[in-house]
Amino acid sequence: MKKTHPGPLRDVLAKNIRKLRAARELSQEALADAAGLHRTYLGGVERSERNISIDNMARIAKSLGVEPWELLKDK
Amino acid sequence: MKKTHPGPLRDVLAKNIRKLRAARELSQEALADAAGLHRTYLGGVERSERNISIDNMARIAKSLGVEPWELLKDK
Repeated sequence: MKKTHPGPLRDVLAKNIRKLRAARELSQEALADAAGLHRTYLGGVERSERNISIDNMARIAKSLGVEPWELLKDK
Repeated sequence: MKKTHPGPLRDVLAKNIRKLRAARELSQEALADAAGLHRTYLGGVERSERNISIDNMARIAKSLGVEPWELLKDK
């Protein structure tokens, strides 16, 4: 597990992904498959452990059917 | 130069950073210094060449005085 430079923005992203994934009744594995990522990697993102890249954020947003910026917004 | 997986979201980010940096009359070097990044790295981000991480996006947003999600919003 990588834990380099955790920050509050990781937590915002993690919370938004978990919330949107639950609303769509997708498992971590189903979302990971749809986005072309590994399930354990997505799990790490949802626990704020991963310093995710912009390209992978774009893939997750597309698979969740939202605009990428919505994943970073802390309502 | 890394050119892995370029995507439209990189272009949105690049455009927003360039626009906000210009509005604040900051050079690439000044913004890079403020964000704790290297000038050539920031240049790569502004040319959509870099697959920037969420932690570095948070640093740039803070140095520009905007919310991170604003960097990903098209328009």
